[in-house]
Amino acid sequence: MQPDFGEQKMPAIDLNSDLGESFGAWSMGDDEAILDVVSSANVACGFHAGDPAGILRTLEAAAARGVAIGAHVAYPDLVGFGRRNMDIPSDQLTADVIYQIGALQGLARSAGTSVSYVKPHGALYNTIAGDQRQAAAVIQALLRIDPALKLVCLANSPLLDWAREAGLSCVAEAFADRAYTAEGTLVSRSRPGAVLHDAERIAERMLRLVREGVIEAEDGREISLQADSICVHGDSPGAVNIARILKDRLHDAGVTVRAFNRG
Amino acid sequence: MQPDFGEQKMPAIDLNSDLGESFGAWSMGDDEAILDVVSSANVACGFHAGDPAGILRTLEAAAARGVAIGAHVAYPDLVGFGRRNMDIPSDQLTADVIYQIGALQGLARSAGTSVSYVKPHGALYNTIAGDQRQAAAVIQALLRIDPALKLVCLANSPLLDWAREAGLSCVAEAFADRAYTAEGTLVSRSRPGAVLHDAERIAERMLRLVREGVIEAEDGREISLQADSICVHGDSPGAVNIARILKDRLHDAGVTVRAFNRG
Amino acid sequence: MQPDFGEQKMPAIDLNSDLGESFGAWSMGDDEAILDVVSSANVACGFHAGDPAGILRTLEAAAARGVAIGAHVAYPDLVGFGRRNMDIPSDQLTADVIYQIGALQGLARSAGTSVSYVKPHGALYNTIAGDQRQAAAVIQALLRIDPALKLVCLANSPLLDWAREAGLSCVAEAFADRAYTAEGTLVSRSRPGAVLHDAERIAERMLRLVREGVIEAEDGREISLQADSICVHGDSPGAVNIARILKDRLHDAGVTVRAFNRG
Amino acid sequence: MQPDFGEQKMPAIDLNSDLGESFGAWSMGDDEAILDVVSSANVACGFHAGDPAGILRTLEAAAARGVAIGAHVAYPDLVGFGRRNMDIPSDQLTADVIYQIGALQGLARSAGTSVSYVKPHGALYNTIAGDQRQAAAVIQALLRIDPALKLVCLANSPLLDWAREAGLSCVAEAFADRAYTAEGTLVSRSRPGAVLHDAERIAERMLRLVREGVIEAEDGREISLQADSICVHGDSPGAVNIARILKDRLHDAGVTVRAFNRG
Repeated sequence: MQPDFGEQKMPAIDLNSDLGESFGAWSMGDDEAILDVVSSANVACGFHAGDPAGILRTLEAAAARGVAIGAHVAYPDLVGFGRRNMDIPSDQLTADVIYQIGALQGLARSAGTSVSYVKPHGALYNTIAGDQRQAAAVIQALLRIDPALKLVCLANSPLLDWAREAGLSCVAEAFADRAYTAEGTLVSRSRPGAVLHDAERIAERMLRLVREGVIEAEDGREISLQADSICVHGDSPGAVNIARILKDRLHDAGVTVRAFNRG
Repeated sequence: MQPDFGEQKMPAIDLNSDLGESFGAWSMGDDEAILDVVSSANVACGFHAGDPAGILRTLEAAAARGVAIGAHVAYPDLVGFGRRNMDIPSDQLTADVIYQIGALQGLARSAGTSVSYVKPHGALYNTIAGDQRQAAAVIQALLRIDPALKLVCLANSPLLDWAREAGLSCVAEAFADRAYTAEGTLVSRSRPGAVLHDAERIAERMLRLVREGVIEAEDGREISLQADSICVHGDSPGAVNIARILKDRLHDAGVTVRAFNRG
Repeated sequence: MQPDFGEQKMPAIDLNSDLGESFGAWSMGDDEAILDVVSSANVACGFHAGDPAGILRTLEAAAARGVAIGAHVAYPDLVGFGRRNMDIPSDQLTADVIYQIGALQGLARSAGTSVSYVKPHGALYNTIAGDQRQAAAVIQALLRIDPALKLVCLANSPLLDWAREAGLSCVAEAFADRAYTAEGTLVSRSRPGAVLHDAERIAERMLRLVREGVIEAEDGREISLQADSICVHGDSPGAVNIARILKDRLHDAGVTVRAFNRG
Repeated sequence: MQPDFGEQKMPAIDLNSDLGESFGAWSMGDDEAILDVVSSANVACGFHAGDPAGILRTLEAAAARGVAIGAHVAYPDLVGFGRRNMDIPSDQLTADVIYQIGALQGLARSAGTSVSYVKPHGALYNTIAGDQRQAAAVIQALLRIDPALKLVCLANSPLLDWAREAGLSCVAEAFADRAYTAEGTLVSRSRPGAVLHDAERIAERMLRLVREGVIEAEDGREISLQADSICVHGDSPGAVNIARILKDRLHDAGVTVRAFNRG
């Protein structure tokens, strides 16, 4: 599928975004608009968002554009949108994740596509980046249902090591619109400056990340950040615009945007 | 897998039962006990009953016994246990059924087994036996996710024709403990005598059904009833006992109990 | 049944709208904007829409404006937004409605206001307008929790008689943006012309309804329609604008907009 | 804080138990049997257990026996039975608790009784015993909906102080079948000996608790434990039997069993 550029191989990066997050009568995000930008779609599986009919429509739209599909698995918490920490016993968490991946695989097959990776959502994403028990439960889910599924992990997090040691392929992820601490972790959303809004500055930061594996932390220091995928948002017109500009700047700089599993 | 008995081939029948219907802290039925009797397990998919961890345990127990797995898909109605009619638009119903089948397929794969058929539950089962719109939505779900999935249908119902015309393989089902009308349909549960309780009488009726394709209706007339599978229950010790006696009587009469998809 | 305005008394009408229909991270409607227009707020109770924290905010906003509060009770169907018919046994439906009213009463008390009426939502509204069994279950709920609660009923529907015979006070409701049949019922949404969009025409129709108790049916005939309240919408900027123009035209014509229970 | 029994007045204690925890088709506990024993019923409110029709039946049975009613409020987690910790923002938790209390008040009124106290369930109970932020959110709920509602708190927990400082009346609670640490807290269920099974020994411990305000800790030391209510269980025949024997022993010793709010 990919041209072989030989020794001068062009740099490439994946852009991913959360999709399928409408629920019944409630709409969220502009899935069609962001699908024209990204190479990977993290599709809700019904636990934090997404009803089956809406998920299926999103999958069909993604399939039509050749966008890769990931299962955006979450805690069972619709009213909290999966953003509230839950202390779920390991066997329950493993089964919850398998259930969600399976449901999305079924809908994806029906839409003529397939699930190639898993990205935990919200509080589950943040928790397993550092909580080894819950991380192990999620890793176990992938191993049991399909060990070929890739796991999207916060770049620089312990989860990357845990998942690789368990035999999974991992995708390290950076966030386009987030500030980083000098330790390479995300600045908490509760702190000023945690979220960036300037599209051109975001594009510059990400371009440097892709080319040099370096990002400027909030204190001005340059830190190393190896990422295989960049997360962008589609839940507002402004967010879609930031994503579009990022994609344009990457393209102008000779960086290919493509799904990580098609490298 | 099956011995070839040549011209004297022994008659065979499938026994199926509903399983995996516990939910969280609430227990229902004795899955282990009934799994020792049946050849096919209709496993709840989370919409009327079943939580992922409990479903997974049931699937593991079924896999250990070589019992075939069916997706027991239902309306999204936990509090009503899928027994209340719902007027769901076709695209939503199709996606709901795909979602449930997919979720169960994922859990089944994790348990080392697979889903070979679909049996709608409760109000959905009764509705699609005669409602062509909802029937078409369910049929569409199977065609989209996997046309090789068999559909369990009420014997003598229009659904059998609709599903076969759409290209699905069907399994006609009789109910061990239910009375039949002279038209070959089930006597409504609201009428006296609708449910049978005498294990020996039930076994006799079913033995005749298997051998002759005939059952005695409530008015004493003999009617034709072609069934590939017999539904038994495991939700009470009495029910499990009825199922055991039925299996023993079938065995004594030389009838093999085996999953319909292993014929 | 109609208020006696005496010789000098100005005519009055209630304007009601559905509010509190956001759910968790999902927003719906502009509650603040429509609260500036209406005299009665039908507030979601969590079964078709509304989470407790969001409902409480809506109630506080309504209380601050002195808008009357109604319990917008519904079938237990979040993903279907209460728009799908459900065949719920009477004792369950009665208890479901009591539960919702009680929950809203508790939140209303906490917001410094109270629930003065009940308006069923969506499929439940339509069903009980003509289905006597389900209507009786809803009526029973009001009688049991508080017989002083008024019930909002579709004008010209049998429900009005059933509820009054049971001893409830009823509010007959007209829909500002809907066409009527010559029999005085709503034209089905599936038919062309069922929903009106011209704000001035809507205002004229409602003004005549208030003054003369007459509305023009889709076939041009004039029919009698006695209404105590007019339903307007707030789920889009266009809908809020229609409601505002209606209120202005009523005001210009000397019609007071006030809650029916404050006549 | 302890009731003044005067010189002749007989000692009294409240026995409470969790009820109304069935859900739809799933049954839990024998509400009728335990209602014949206890003086206070903690009734599920639908968030961890309980459907409206089932709750209503339990309330009617409690009303018929003159048993006091408490709202057994919980995290919104049916599948986890409210036993999994959830990190819910304060405004959401306050509104969730108000919603549940209100719903139960509505059902109680319909059953001819009323809610006199609130007892948080499961993980919420344990969390607010020591987590000041979540405790404040629950206290705020009671203050907003009805400051006369009493709050059942783990004896010896900081919650007692927080709630009293906020102006609430509190009920200190001991657990009949649980071992205590030397610090007066419950021995974790994960440790051997945490749960007691010997009915006579349980009765002796509780009798001493009522008379002397003393209980023997797991290490044999005697510790002070002031309790206004004792929690017993009804979820198994054995549990009901323990409760019955406790009540008999209390009666034989001249201790009156009555609801704390009727002292």
